[in-house]
Amino acid sequence: MSKTADISPHGQQPEDSLELRALYAGFEVEHLMPLWTQLGDLMPVHPKPKAVPHVWKWANLLPLAEASGRLVPVGRGGERRALGLANPGLGGRAYVSPTLWAAIQYLGPHEVAPEHRHSQNAFRFVVEGAGVWTVVNGDPVRMSRGDFLLTPGWNFHGHHNNSDHPMAWIDGLDIPFSWANDVGFFEFGSERVTDYATPNFSRSERLWCHPGLRPLSVLENTVSSPVGAYRWKHTDRALTEQLLLEEDGQPATVEQGHAAVRFINPTTGGDVMPTIRAEFHRLRAGTATPVRREVGSTVFQVYEGKGGVTMAGTEHRLEKGDLFVIPSWVPWSLWSDEQFDLFRFSDAPIMERLNFARTMINGKDG
Amino acid sequence: MSKTADISPHGQQPEDSLELRALYAGFEVEHLMPLWTQLGDLMPVHPKPKAVPHVWKWANLLPLAEASGRLVPVGRGGERRALGLANPGLGGRAYVSPTLWAAIQYLGPHEVAPEHRHSQNAFRFVVEGAGVWTVVNGDPVRMSRGDFLLTPGWNFHGHHNNSDHPMAWIDGLDIPFSWANDVGFFEFGSERVTDYATPNFSRSERLWCHPGLRPLSVLENTVSSPVGAYRWKHTDRALTEQLLLEEDGQPATVEQGHAAVRFINPTTGGDVMPTIRAEFHRLRAGTATPVRREVGSTVFQVYEGKGGVTMAGTEHRLEKGDLFVIPSWVPWSLWSDEQFDLFRFSDAPIMERLNFARTMINGKDG
Amino acid sequence: MSKTADISPHGQQPEDSLELRALYAGFEVEHLMPLWTQLGDLMPVHPKPKAVPHVWKWANLLPLAEASGRLVPVGRGGERRALGLANPGLGGRAYVSPTLWAAIQYLGPHEVAPEHRHSQNAFRFVVEGAGVWTVVNGDPVRMSRGDFLLTPGWNFHGHHNNSDHPMAWIDGLDIPFSWANDVGFFEFGSERVTDYATPNFSRSERLWCHPGLRPLSVLENTVSSPVGAYRWKHTDRALTEQLLLEEDGQPATVEQGHAAVRFINPTTGGDVMPTIRAEFHRLRAGTATPVRREVGSTVFQVYEGKGGVTMAGTEHRLEKGDLFVIPSWVPWSLWSDEQFDLFRFSDAPIMERLNFARTMINGKDG
Amino acid sequence: MSKTADISPHGQQPEDSLELRALYAGFEVEHLMPLWTQLGDLMPVHPKPKAVPHVWKWANLLPLAEASGRLVPVGRGGERRALGLANPGLGGRAYVSPTLWAAIQYLGPHEVAPEHRHSQNAFRFVVEGAGVWTVVNGDPVRMSRGDFLLTPGWNFHGHHNNSDHPMAWIDGLDIPFSWANDVGFFEFGSERVTDYATPNFSRSERLWCHPGLRPLSVLENTVSSPVGAYRWKHTDRALTEQLLLEEDGQPATVEQGHAAVRFINPTTGGDVMPTIRAEFHRLRAGTATPVRREVGSTVFQVYEGKGGVTMAGTEHRLEKGDLFVIPSWVPWSLWSDEQFDLFRFSDAPIMERLNFARTMINGKDG
Repeated sequence: MSKTADISPHGQQPEDSLELRALYAGFEVEHLMPLWTQLGDLMPVHPKPKAVPHVWKWANLLPLAEASGRLVPVGRGGERRALGLANPGLGGRAYVSPTLWAAIQYLGPHEVAPEHRHSQNAFRFVVEGAGVWTVVNGDPVRMSRGDFLLTPGWNFHGHHNNSDHPMAWIDGLDIPFSWANDVGFFEFGSERVTDYATPNFSRSERLWCHPGLRPLSVLENTVSSPVGAYRWKHTDRALTEQLLLEEDGQPATVEQGHAAVRFINPTTGGDVMPTIRAEFHRLRAGTATPVRREVGSTVFQVYEGKGGVTMAGTEHRLEKGDLFVIPSWVPWSLWSDEQFDLFRFSDAPIMERLNFARTMINGKDG
Repeated sequence: MSKTADISPHGQQPEDSLELRALYAGFEVEHLMPLWTQLGDLMPVHPKPKAVPHVWKWANLLPLAEASGRLVPVGRGGERRALGLANPGLGGRAYVSPTLWAAIQYLGPHEVAPEHRHSQNAFRFVVEGAGVWTVVNGDPVRMSRGDFLLTPGWNFHGHHNNSDHPMAWIDGLDIPFSWANDVGFFEFGSERVTDYATPNFSRSERLWCHPGLRPLSVLENTVSSPVGAYRWKHTDRALTEQLLLEEDGQPATVEQGHAAVRFINPTTGGDVMPTIRAEFHRLRAGTATPVRREVGSTVFQVYEGKGGVTMAGTEHRLEKGDLFVIPSWVPWSLWSDEQFDLFRFSDAPIMERLNFARTMINGKDG
Repeated sequence: MSKTADISPHGQQPEDSLELRALYAGFEVEHLMPLWTQLGDLMPVHPKPKAVPHVWKWANLLPLAEASGRLVPVGRGGERRALGLANPGLGGRAYVSPTLWAAIQYLGPHEVAPEHRHSQNAFRFVVEGAGVWTVVNGDPVRMSRGDFLLTPGWNFHGHHNNSDHPMAWIDGLDIPFSWANDVGFFEFGSERVTDYATPNFSRSERLWCHPGLRPLSVLENTVSSPVGAYRWKHTDRALTEQLLLEEDGQPATVEQGHAAVRFINPTTGGDVMPTIRAEFHRLRAGTATPVRREVGSTVFQVYEGKGGVTMAGTEHRLEKGDLFVIPSWVPWSLWSDEQFDLFRFSDAPIMERLNFARTMINGKDG
Repeated sequence: MSKTADISPHGQQPEDSLELRALYAGFEVEHLMPLWTQLGDLMPVHPKPKAVPHVWKWANLLPLAEASGRLVPVGRGGERRALGLANPGLGGRAYVSPTLWAAIQYLGPHEVAPEHRHSQNAFRFVVEGAGVWTVVNGDPVRMSRGDFLLTPGWNFHGHHNNSDHPMAWIDGLDIPFSWANDVGFFEFGSERVTDYATPNFSRSERLWCHPGLRPLSVLENTVSSPVGAYRWKHTDRALTEQLLLEEDGQPATVEQGHAAVRFINPTTGGDVMPTIRAEFHRLRAGTATPVRREVGSTVFQVYEGKGGVTMAGTEHRLEKGDLFVIPSWVPWSLWSDEQFDLFRFSDAPIMERLNFARTMINGKDG
């Protein structure tokens, strides 16, 4: 039997007999289950996710969000008008992967999503539009195209649309992980948001978003990033510089034609939240990335440009707003027809902190 | 609505209509699920585990293990003659909790459980008996009553019974966590164990088990403890000293009458493995611990003595070998009629590393 | 004898006798010295620095630097035209404190200071002027008023003046610490600088100076900051925002009227180099800071504005460019007549990493 | 000029002139010193310690300690009857190196050294004898041959001789480092020791010295080790096992025939104190170690056996009790005629925490 061959879950079972049936009956009575009848499923030779690779087309999602805007009120109780991406492999739960939640949230003109807080870590990414402010512990944070916003665990937060047009964006959370592991607490806050001001920049940005500078008034490190919003202007600039440096023959990109930045907690240089990693990737026109396999699951959303992803050997053409999920250990590669910008988030901090992280690049350990 | 009242998962739903049904049908087509129909279940006000508190009586488990010894061969394919404790709340999976696996493993006279390795972290605890050696990466480790043995992720390991009598012990692993999050790799090793020597002490102990001393040949820290076995002699001595110090009025115990030690990785002073914490607790006769609620799940096995546990208000009398599980946030307290020794393991490192840990002691944040 | 009274270094000495003299002679022969004759000096009740508080007036230093420009060539061997501040208490060594070196460096029109590298950590701060580029490992870094530049240990660096006017700036290093503890290595590099380009921004800034973003191509943390220059534009903006937030009643400043930022290593959120901390402080007009005593020594340079410092009870009026040193445990306070900007550096990372840090604020442990 | 050639401190000086003399006079007035007149001394191509390698013969030191016992009282003011090893290169200061203090302390029958505490970190090592207890924050710690005792910074400590014979041992501290950097605080404690009990084991050992076990009552890590004494029995056993494992062909020793352990802080696995590393080394008969050069200074004391050390090319034969110092970057090698046991301490934690550590082994970077 090859070292990497799978274990047949029913391979080499004891011979059936009355005694054996009595034994198995005894197991049931005592709430026991033998390992030998289930090992192959429980301990596969490599991750065999139930979740499947899947693409959600923005062109199909947005109209449904808009229809929800007409038919479904937002307010206390339901809390958010959010449509969760349900991985087809996960049996009808609104889980994009076993650890991650991804949803489109929709807020109509002058609507308010009331304040609450929860242990679950959350972020927003804005693929288009503007006009909404997210209020995090009383600090109003403008939402605009390309911005990445944080509402880490146990921070009160609500949203209000200050404009005459609706707005839709992406929510990302660790709801499935929190649910499966029974870690979640939830508390209602104000029925309205606590501050309707609409400043261009949140107080958190004014205090923290100065490169290489840390306020002396906050020398304790924070578990999650204190930054309320990471602005597109900075992200775009960083990616642009990486490609320019690459053109000058300088080390700057992940690999030829592939620029990328990670959103970090400035107090530590590490991930923005304990369970969620967020990054932004840019491919030059005509670039294809190596084939990667990674332990843990990840979600991408196309921000701009044309290209595609190959997951488990299947090609998917992608356009602005399209979302796709790559479950654990599924091989994937990105490719671009024109400059191709993608937002990414994943559960990598969980895998790294618990020492389960593993990567293969083009079939070699990465 | 009170801040802590639960959210009715079906509270405040949009009015039924043909349009709404069409919308919901559209969600299904596009693999979307609305948050507003499921929020209360997904994000409870505090952890509401599906797992339930449960006690397994050693007096009932051991005969079933013995019967398995007669009826079920051990060998390649099934790998281990292990009976997993199946939490009655978890729908017939062999999960003692959402994160943890606990099983009785049984090995007959001169039987061998073949070598393999896996990403899942594992340990053994020996509540009674002796005669088996676990071979970890070629290092034979004696198993005897009271010993705690490690086989951290990706270490080859097998077992062989060098005696004329059977032996049973407890296996603990993070199988449910690894399965749910798709992190597991598995590889077969030797069909037999690679070293049949039966030394009193493993090489790992000879190198590492000298208090306050570190070999200069190993200055890199290791993710998991390099120690193959933590011997009862040391555990018993440490607990005895704590109670003696307490009698002298010195700070030493967790609380009056309650001595406890944590098994640690000597290269870091932290937990023995990235996902599993292991401890040993001793209560003086007539001691009752405060009521604790903790995020994360934990399993105890009674090692010696008489006493009980109260979980969610229900008292359970306990005897040697009995096992019980306390799911997340379930209130619990231990009490003793005579000196009461318990082995404990839990998923606390997961909760702490991901910042979900929370404790209440007698109703106050701990 | 009070617990805090000093130990007389000659208090309670053994009675003089021929035997005692013979004993002391024996000590000399064997290279021994008794503790009892020197304890009070060796182990004072609190730090009693030999270094003294001192102010250097820019108005006096600059002409001497200019004269050096006329009389002293710069080049291989001497390496730098730098005038070290010599603390009057340190016996004629060019040490501003026991750990720190501070110097004015002066470079004439089109002059070049050749490349070299050394274990000693170094920075530059520009109080006025422009026109020089520092080349760090081949990366040209523009120097302009208000900029803070890094050349951490073992990085090759040289300077060239690309302009028709001279330029002077401040060098800060850990030379005294390195010398006293015998840690220094030195190596010559190119006789000229390796790149005469004069870009507005160094490659390091283009890669790293985007708030909250980290290039995916550099995920290993670096011992020292990878940032070549911290620009005045960002520093000024950060300080301005802190004072504006304070006006809005938001927490942002160190204390009322006192804004401050620390220059950090973006890969860790910690100090820019292992031995040197650098900060920028701004006082509103009419502000006085509490009286601080800190273990470790620190140097300030006035960047702009009018005010003063009180050290060990003595007031010193300060103007643009003035430098002053505060030795360990000397009480100090800053005060301002108008908005008062100061650059600061210190050996605080040494004190913190070795656990010697201690602070008193207005007579209380800080 | 070769890249590694030294810089002549007087090489390439400006031409003498009246103007230059006036300039240099100006420097003096303004407390400035030019770099170009001193660079070679300040920044050598590699560490050029003023301290020299030196050996102190126990046979000569002990009689002087005994004579001190007759002629010099011990008590408040002088505090300790300690003879500091004065490195011949350090100008008559009682410094064994720029960072370290090493002394013989001598206490007569039933004498008491009063309690005090100081920021300086201290340890004792007992090369022979017994009978004294060191009381650390009220915890009496027995001193016996081969034991290594800690009194970390700011812990009250005194000594009392409970026997009818005198006792001598080695004190190690970071006095020179603390003095040079102005970090020291000192406070008198009780004139006598606070507890005259003479237990075999200190409370700290009873709580902490159980391999791989940590008391649940102390989960906060401590800056310095909480262990009062590391006993010879454990050290000897650890070294013996390493050599036995080596004989079995197992990795265990630093290099062939060279066993070594580091004394560690069990809460972290790191050094016992923030500034001082302590180790114990054992060479098999007929072993010679490679030639090492290390940044930082170190002191050895021969515990048992016959052998020698070669420092900077000079051989020194060594016997029980002999002490020797190796200054920074001085090449050294140990060799043994018979089994050779040596205690070692150094300032390595300073060098590592500040990133100055560097090693060469047989001429190659280590």
